[in-house]
Amino acid sequence: MIELNQVYTHDFQFTQDDVIKFADVTGDHNPVHLDPVYAATTLFKKPIIHGMLGAAVFSKVFGTLFPGDGTIYLKQSLSFRNPLYVGTAYQAVFTVLEVEKEKNRLTIETLIKETGTGTLITKGEATVMVTPDKLS
Amino acid sequence: MIELNQVYTHDFQFTQDDVIKFADVTGDHNPVHLDPVYAATTLFKKPIIHGMLGAAVFSKVFGTLFPGDGTIYLKQSLSFRNPLYVGTAYQAVFTVLEVEKEKNRLTIETLIKETGTGTLITKGEATVMVTPDKLS
Repeated sequence: MIELNQVYTHDFQFTQDDVIKFADVTGDHNPVHLDPVYAATTLFKKPIIHGMLGAAVFSKVFGTLFPGDGTIYLKQSLSFRNPLYVGTAYQAVFTVLEVEKEKNRLTIETLIKETGTGTLITKGEATVMVTPDKLS
Repeated sequence: MIELNQVYTHDFQFTQDDVIKFADVTGDHNPVHLDPVYAATTLFKKPIIHGMLGAAVFSKVFGTLFPGDGTIYLKQSLSFRNPLYVGTAYQAVFTVLEVEKEKNRLTIETLIKETGTGTLITKGEATVMVTPDKLS
């Protein structure tokens, strides 16, 4: 059962190979993600992970873990506060902000934090529709 | 030069192979994207593309085409109105809603429409920081 104020966490990290694959499938070959020489000239100093690859963790968790099977993604806001780097451990933190039983909808705060430091990387809010059994 | 009310469009489509690759790199193996038998039991009737793969087109365009090189992604809102299907032609439509020259920031409406029908698939708004030469 999913309840108001419930918190779910999910640990993850990405490799440079993941970033290359994400660039290939999305067509997003921005050199800031792929080229260390170019990235060194930017304020990030080294290659950063696509923000949308980080955000895809929210989609993965909603569709497969929490709430899981049958969940339909309705809305997501994203504020990219700090970059993600390859080989760094992150934690996605989900907090249930609102439960609308009559609509089978949840509003969930979605955060990505760097595991070691707690630094806020990505902040947002999602709305998902879930199967009724998740709320009864 | 990028100006208020400027419109930029980008045509795209994805294959089932793209969807499989996106599932692999993100870990989002929700069967609604991958399994035709499971998808047939849902309201979508056939496998749908991850909404975040569609949204990644916004990231690709910002980082590589419009505004392009040096663009930093700050915010994105996403409302997933209708699903995307493989092998269907879509158009991403970008409209400049606000230009903040002193901050080098743009607010851009981001839409995905089905090319044939004009059906609205995804609706959102982005904030990006651009290099000063894009606005001078």
